[in-house]
Amino acid sequence: MVVLREVIGSELRRRRQHQGRTLREVSSAARVSLGYLSEVERGQKEASSELLSAICGALDAPLSGILSDAARKVAVMERKDTMPQLVHTRMVLPKDVDSISYPRLRSGARS
Amino acid sequence: MVVLREVIGSELRRRRQHQGRTLREVSSAARVSLGYLSEVERGQKEASSELLSAICGALDAPLSGILSDAARKVAVMERKDTMPQLVHTRMVLPKDVDSISYPRLRSGARS
Repeated sequence: MVVLREVIGSELRRRRQHQGRTLREVSSAARVSLGYLSEVERGQKEASSELLSAICGALDAPLSGILSDAARKVAVMERKDTMPQLVHTRMVLPKDVDSISYPRLRSGARS
Repeated sequence: MVVLREVIGSELRRRRQHQGRTLREVSSAARVSLGYLSEVERGQKEASSELLSAICGALDAPLSGILSDAARKVAVMERKDTMPQLVHTRMVLPKDVDSISYPRLRSGARS
């Protein structure tokens, strides 16, 4: 199951780190506690709509951008969730690849 | 300020009504209380990530679709928030529109 708070949290963290800013700087600008912001970024706490807006404001990142990036990530995760057989399929080769024998083909050979 | 829970709530309600389903049907399918779903739809309660997933499942609507629709709505609201002077500007015309006079233009007239 896709957990939205984890996707949004990692998106917030990615943007903060991309700006080279610390948890302390952004939490102070957003007027939330450092511990709260850290928990939100790690997907351990649901951010209320008001605090999410405040964090977006502190990052100077529009909420719509965070949401559309999250939507793209969630879409990828949903595709993985619905196609487990493809995700977990591995091609199995013998350890000694040279030992594979192929049938010989001769030009003009009849089947 | 854009309140995300209101945008997501109205998106959930729009989809439920589009499917012609009642609060009772969807809350039962999602295994949440009717009152809780009603509050989430009206933007009065934050849905936890787990319950949002359950509601999306009950609506057979991928979370990614809800998020990208929400992102579009939020983008429109953000543009309104940052351009209040354009949103509230009205063109004022005199009541008797026929009384407006225009300068006459003659072909070949010099400026």
